Amino acid sequence: MKLWQGRLTGKLNPSAESFNRSLGFDHRLGSVDVCGSIAWAEALQYAGLLEDRDAKQIIDGLEHIKAQISAGTLDVDAGDEDIHSAVERQLTEMIGPVAGRLHTGRSRNDQVATDFRLWVMAAIQRVDAQLCNLQDTLLQRAELDWGAVLPGYTHLQQAQPILLSHWWLSHFWALQRDRHRLHNLYKETEVCPLGCGALAGTGFEEIDRFRLSDALGFREPSPNSLDAVSDRDFVAGFLFCCSMIGVHASRMAEALILYSTREFGYMTLADDFSTGSSLMPQKKNPDPLELVRGKSGTLTGRLAGFLATLKALPSAYDKDLQEDKQPVFEAADTVEKALEVMSGCISTLVVHKSKMFAAIDPQALATDMADALVSTGIPFREAYSLVGRAVRKAEELGLLLNELPLTEWQALVPNFDFRLLDALDIDLSLSRRAAFGGTAPEAVREQLEIAKGVQKVKLY
Amino acid sequence: MKLWQGRLTGKLNPSAESFNRSLGFDHRLGSVDVCGSIAWAEALQYAGLLEDRDAKQIIDGLEHIKAQISAGTLDVDAGDEDIHSAVERQLTEMIGPVAGRLHTGRSRNDQVATDFRLWVMAAIQRVDAQLCNLQDTLLQRAELDWGAVLPGYTHLQQAQPILLSHWWLSHFWALQRDRHRLHNLYKETEVCPLGCGALAGTGFEEIDRFRLSDALGFREPSPNSLDAVSDRDFVAGFLFCCSMIGVHASRMAEALILYSTREFGYMTLADDFSTGSSLMPQKKNPDPLELVRGKSGTLTGRLAGFLATLKALPSAYDKDLQEDKQPVFEAADTVEKALEVMSGCISTLVVHKSKMFAAIDPQALATDMADALVSTGIPFREAYSLVGRAVRKAEELGLLLNELPLTEWQALVPNFDFRLLDALDIDLSLSRRAAFGGTAPEAVREQLEIAKGVQKVKLY
Amino acid sequence: MKLWQGRLTGKLNPSAESFNRSLGFDHRLGSVDVCGSIAWAEALQYAGLLEDRDAKQIIDGLEHIKAQISAGTLDVDAGDEDIHSAVERQLTEMIGPVAGRLHTGRSRNDQVATDFRLWVMAAIQRVDAQLCNLQDTLLQRAELDWGAVLPGYTHLQQAQPILLSHWWLSHFWALQRDRHRLHNLYKETEVCPLGCGALAGTGFEEIDRFRLSDALGFREPSPNSLDAVSDRDFVAGFLFCCSMIGVHASRMAEALILYSTREFGYMTLADDFSTGSSLMPQKKNPDPLELVRGKSGTLTGRLAGFLATLKALPSAYDKDLQEDKQPVFEAADTVEKALEVMSGCISTLVVHKSKMFAAIDPQALATDMADALVSTGIPFREAYSLVGRAVRKAEELGLLLNELPLTEWQALVPNFDFRLLDALDIDLSLSRRAAFGGTAPEAVREQLEIAKGVQKVKLY
Amino acid sequence: MKLWQGRLTGKLNPSAESFNRSLGFDHRLGSVDVCGSIAWAEALQYAGLLEDRDAKQIIDGLEHIKAQISAGTLDVDAGDEDIHSAVERQLTEMIGPVAGRLHTGRSRNDQVATDFRLWVMAAIQRVDAQLCNLQDTLLQRAELDWGAVLPGYTHLQQAQPILLSHWWLSHFWALQRDRHRLHNLYKETEVCPLGCGALAGTGFEEIDRFRLSDALGFREPSPNSLDAVSDRDFVAGFLFCCSMIGVHASRMAEALILYSTREFGYMTLADDFSTGSSLMPQKKNPDPLELVRGKSGTLTGRLAGFLATLKALPSAYDKDLQEDKQPVFEAADTVEKALEVMSGCISTLVVHKSKMFAAIDPQALATDMADALVSTGIPFREAYSLVGRAVRKAEELGLLLNELPLTEWQALVPNFDFRLLDALDIDLSLSRRAAFGGTAPEAVREQLEIAKGVQKVKLY
Repeated sequence: MKLWQGRLTGKLNPSAESFNRSLGFDHRLGSVDVCGSIAWAEALQYAGLLEDRDAKQIIDGLEHIKAQISAGTLDVDAGDEDIHSAVERQLTEMIGPVAGRLHTGRSRNDQVATDFRLWVMAAIQRVDAQLCNLQDTLLQRAELDWGAVLPGYTHLQQAQPILLSHWWLSHFWALQRDRHRLHNLYKETEVCPLGCGALAGTGFEEIDRFRLSDALGFREPSPNSLDAVSDRDFVAGFLFCCSMIGVHASRMAEALILYSTREFGYMTLADDFSTGSSLMPQKKNPDPLELVRGKSGTLTGRLAGFLATLKALPSAYDKDLQEDKQPVFEAADTVEKALEVMSGCISTLVVHKSKMFAAIDPQALATDMADALVSTGIPFREAYSLVGRAVRKAEELGLLLNELPLTEWQALVPNFDFRLLDALDIDLSLSRRAAFGGTAPEAVREQLEIAKGVQKVKLY
Repeated sequence: MKLWQGRLTGKLNPSAESFNRSLGFDHRLGSVDVCGSIAWAEALQYAGLLEDRDAKQIIDGLEHIKAQISAGTLDVDAGDEDIHSAVERQLTEMIGPVAGRLHTGRSRNDQVATDFRLWVMAAIQRVDAQLCNLQDTLLQRAELDWGAVLPGYTHLQQAQPILLSHWWLSHFWALQRDRHRLHNLYKETEVCPLGCGALAGTGFEEIDRFRLSDALGFREPSPNSLDAVSDRDFVAGFLFCCSMIGVHASRMAEALILYSTREFGYMTLADDFSTGSSLMPQKKNPDPLELVRGKSGTLTGRLAGFLATLKALPSAYDKDLQEDKQPVFEAADTVEKALEVMSGCISTLVVHKSKMFAAIDPQALATDMADALVSTGIPFREAYSLVGRAVRKAEELGLLLNELPLTEWQALVPNFDFRLLDALDIDLSLSRRAAFGGTAPEAVREQLEIAKGVQKVKLY
Repeated sequence: MKLWQGRLTGKLNPSAESFNRSLGFDHRLGSVDVCGSIAWAEALQYAGLLEDRDAKQIIDGLEHIKAQISAGTLDVDAGDEDIHSAVERQLTEMIGPVAGRLHTGRSRNDQVATDFRLWVMAAIQRVDAQLCNLQDTLLQRAELDWGAVLPGYTHLQQAQPILLSHWWLSHFWALQRDRHRLHNLYKETEVCPLGCGALAGTGFEEIDRFRLSDALGFREPSPNSLDAVSDRDFVAGFLFCCSMIGVHASRMAEALILYSTREFGYMTLADDFSTGSSLMPQKKNPDPLELVRGKSGTLTGRLAGFLATLKALPSAYDKDLQEDKQPVFEAADTVEKALEVMSGCISTLVVHKSKMFAAIDPQALATDMADALVSTGIPFREAYSLVGRAVRKAEELGLLLNELPLTEWQALVPNFDFRLLDALDIDLSLSRRAAFGGTAPEAVREQLEIAKGVQKVKLY
Repeated sequence: MKLWQGRLTGKLNPSAESFNRSLGFDHRLGSVDVCGSIAWAEALQYAGLLEDRDAKQIIDGLEHIKAQISAGTLDVDAGDEDIHSAVERQLTEMIGPVAGRLHTGRSRNDQVATDFRLWVMAAIQRVDAQLCNLQDTLLQRAELDWGAVLPGYTHLQQAQPILLSHWWLSHFWALQRDRHRLHNLYKETEVCPLGCGALAGTGFEEIDRFRLSDALGFREPSPNSLDAVSDRDFVAGFLFCCSMIGVHASRMAEALILYSTREFGYMTLADDFSTGSSLMPQKKNPDPLELVRGKSGTLTGRLAGFLATLKALPSAYDKDLQEDKQPVFEAADTVEKALEVMSGCISTLVVHKSKMFAAIDPQALATDMADALVSTGIPFREAYSLVGRAVRKAEELGLLLNELPLTEWQALVPNFDFRLLDALDIDLSLSRRAAFGGTAPEAVREQLEIAKGVQKVKLY
């Protein structure tokens, strides 16, 4: 028997019933739903719409149900359409018809919107904690691997040498943006729809929505009841934030997978974060990193799918909006786990400093040589072209760039001073990049201190 | 303890383990996995790589597990990474180390690809059955509602009158395309990867892959082992087919939702396919149709997400591909249920023929009048313009188009013969559209017979 | 001849050349590119890396090119790979080899990232202006249509009566969230990558990146050179903001399309925002609104596509990132135009107040009756059920709810007082919803004043 | 002045007009539009609805316009809404009011649907030609690089040695599926909507739609007029096919990018398909391959966006469908160019056979050793475990797997016969994989012949 029996028979066709039922996933709203109901009972009582005795009975009953939910013992049955019906049925069985007074002036529409915002607000804080944790790991690696130098890549071709600590920190900043993005979303989410009824506002003007908003930890009540029940911007926003985290984790994962190949050989993952093959005894696969990468695709799909669902919805609340919960639950789970796994992978992997250093092709210092020529007064574009020809010459001769004889340099560049060859020194190359944000050790040290500072700021 | 213990410690970090585990969803491959293993055991035996006694033991054990799976009694435990490990562990516990001979020459990669194709092939057939079922319902409605006329819409503005049966049939053809699309996909899917090993082909050339393909009901073995283990085109194809079904169902749902509003009033949904509100006692909501519409967004997101995952995967098999199963399982479930619900909604709704007919604005016959003027020798473009002005005139006078006095027509069109006003008759308008595919009753009857014919053709 | 000729032949295969060329769209970066180059020239000069005379020549040349771009007379030729090459070539032709000094210490990577951020910052401000404009229109309609009452819908079924002004304002708040979202994005975007070189930082430590950042109107220089050249979060963020605006516009459009149908009949669009049919003379189609709705799908696809491109990129800068510009340009154009069109449609449409009011089914007051029963001491859930039965009774008798005889109410509710029938008065129903955010005239008036207040706040 | 002036003022607001105008992209339909119009004129004439003299004038005029379109000299002006209006205006200017007879019984809806199908049918054939061309290149490489052996990868870790020819062929089969997918789409597309009018069928039953369908090269007329004008399955199908081609090209590109890194070093791209850097003189970047990879993301976004647009469209034709053309045009262009570029890259790259061979870690033969142990009667699972331990032992000793002393093997495997060490021979490993589809030279040769056979079959 459905709540809404009366006008309708209340008997859904079984296929429609199973299609409609959301209990399989929305049970996760149980705790926040009970909190919302307690606040509502108090608001009714405060407004004089619920007698003290009734209020007490209802609140005691709800507290009991809350405890059952925490303990995982709430009894839901196959007939319950969703978690809200399950709680209402449970309360009625516990305290009798007085339970029927709780829904006074409230609709499922404002109730669910409130629950879901509370859930998302908590999820944002959990994800932020995982982001901080991964940031911590990156900061530790930046300290731990201090001094390691690797070839920096663009287009996956060696570009210029960089400090590994600089590389670790580059990922720190992406996560910092994720944290800010989530924080902005939090501020957008902490607006309380309760008291907006189905769409037109609660029918009881005595309800104090500001007090209610405070009681539930929101910043303020929503200013328009129609908007309040149909606004799912915060859902799309959460899926977008999760997609961006997925993108960042995926880019990190891609690089770590590459650097852990036999061919690059810069890192070795810990056995605890590697799996084998069912057939090939030698295999050590970076499965967790590949899953991080793969799941980032799924995350973007959840966003795309929800936007498609949201688009063109015609009015206040439509049942299509029920599609909002599963993607959020799954995205939150995915992102929390992915960040934890990334942190585990990174903190336990072994870096092969000497292999990294040895891998640097002296050609990666070609820009330094062009810059050196600039310092002799040659316009950059010409210097660039001269060094390009030197690179080609060295390749033709089968030589590394630093093996190209002085005579060849002099053939290309009139008056080439042999001291210019210092440009091809890796350490000098690094130290030249000391402008703010560059890879020179002193600049990276400064950056590291700034990063530590911002990471310490608690956002919640 | 993992299968691949040996080179690695086999102990995954708990976060990585839970991130990796796929048993929560891939248990649905249980039956096809066992079938695949039985076929493999027979292939090993036939190739002389497994003694008859061992083969019998293994096959008997697998048959037993198959029965357990059917009965829902298979014992999986928390340590099982996936359904394949669970089956292998179970078999080993049942028959001892001889179970270890089953994996000879086979990899998880070809095994999973084979299982998944078998699952998708069965799912295609189930979805096809639901498509046929909904087509049946549409054909029945086309018969049942014969004679009903409604305003046809473009841009949601009344365009021209049409037969309701013609409208029902328009959806029939979209589903017929879905059936063909799925059938093409079936042919693409029934290619057998078993015997391709991890990527390079099985190490035992005695294996007869053609015989194996036949035994499992495939059309042929895959021609390239690398491609065989990494090809997930059939997954993307399945998600695309499901998205298209979702789009079609969603367009139907949108129209039925509109036609069931108080404002259109053409149809009333059965109570069995309607739900109420928790607050508003009068409400009768088309929830199942809204969910069909909403879930179609989610379906397209699954496709988009999987394509993002698939893109740029670097080599044969990568763990990212584990993201292939959940979207397929969920899409298949969604589509099967959505089609069933649509069929239920449509077969039980009540059509209000007289309201539909009464809703037709005589302006919807304006094209007929233009066509009539064409028959008097006026070029269409001019006729169009004259009727447009008549429409404006009628609006200015506050009249329906068929109330516009003859004198007004004559003021616009010199020599306007009063018999031309017959053009504004709805039945005549319909009967004029008798060219193949048009809405004239005779044309729709012909179409209905063709539709019945194609619907009868079994594709599997 | 390409800039990078030297090591390579500089002759691309024609198919690769046309595939690579981005001038067809990135010419829109012309102005910001020149601004960036002027700032860079000044930074080089300030750092002592460029002599005053050379700097003057370069800056004068760039100013000249800037004027040409404004005038639309910049000469680009088929060989130019992108706008940056076009500008560099033009400058060289104008002032000779000294132009080659401009690129000292700068890379295409930091240059493009800087240009693109500047472009997006300006685009955000343009979109914000359009959002404000549409908000203005909504505020004006809320004033203009004061007093109009329409049926509020959930699930597209009549729910409760609401003020049309309340409905207009509900869209105001969605746009306000869009404005905040864009503003947060602006703050994320105004970080200056210039001086980060290709990936490792500029090779000239004398460059003052803080000064450079100020000169270009950024808030601060980016803290990590690797991140600076590969970060495209602001691009994804912009596409997300545009998608959300699209979603909001699309929901508004959907409602306006419905309300403009003959069947709803609440509004008539102005002829200036309607189009006709090529065949049907009577047609008046809401094309611009349908395009707003349709283009919102395209906008979400651009976001999904770019996230797929971004995912798993392996290192600092990869050419895949060239796919960032077209979606941003197109999304900005679409959103600016769509908002302008929406504003035009809304400010010119005619509202049919009496039709709206007449359309309200008295059933839409069923909740008010249930609330009235609650005030007599009946628990809400029971009151709900009683009214549900009254609704059913009225339907069986073919009566509107307010036509149901008192005796029938009394048969259902013992001691039913006839004064309770006042609950079925539309004006009373509205005025009861006076809690903050509700649809009571006094609450909507308060909301309107708040809205005007927030709309006035300039964000830039 | 718009065609549909008459009832409406025909003057659109400038913002609405520019938002509506599609001439900027739909001019590409010019040729097919004229063909459709000629066929329609002939159909009218054949049906006796157009006198011979008028028909001749119209057709001559259209032929003239067709020639102008081919020559690129068609005069379109700013006022033309779309290509169809431009052609109609042009024809009227050329032959006077008789041009107004052409649109008799035809609507823009069936006209555009017909045009667009014709365009897509031609595009499918062009894309197929590019697919064939790339297949050719792959077959040539498979011949040319015969004998080259490289490490096969799963999870980007070395798995087993494979023939490079086998690797090239693996991509051949993915393209073959693309060709079949496109061919199925072609069959779905070649259904003729002309004669379906706006939605209800043409008003002139004399029109012979079968003859019309034949004249335009379609297979058959569409069976339902409502479906005919609103069906855009073929558009979604085309975008899906292009997305899949993009995915395949992107996976190939990813591998080639990796194999061309200094670290893998298996291949060198030709200078003609590489670009340099604006800053770093040594750079040689695989830009075209990166763009193929990046654009594959954009392609999937176009599909996702169009599905979002299509979903929930309420009735026959809605203006939202105008969003169908740009994605198709862009996807077709992208895919044609990407395939051409891939073919160019692949045919011109240089393979470093000896580096490939030298890169094979003997561990990649671990499975062969396990298989060898199986042949001595050890169950596979045990053999697997023994070899795993041998791998670990070798790593501990800092030895390659083939350097592990016999005594170590014997310590692990009692009675280990030294001849088992032959399992670690690369050529033997390859030749063992001779089952159909495997990497043994004889199996690859057989596969190559089959591939050549299927590639030769013309589909159009």
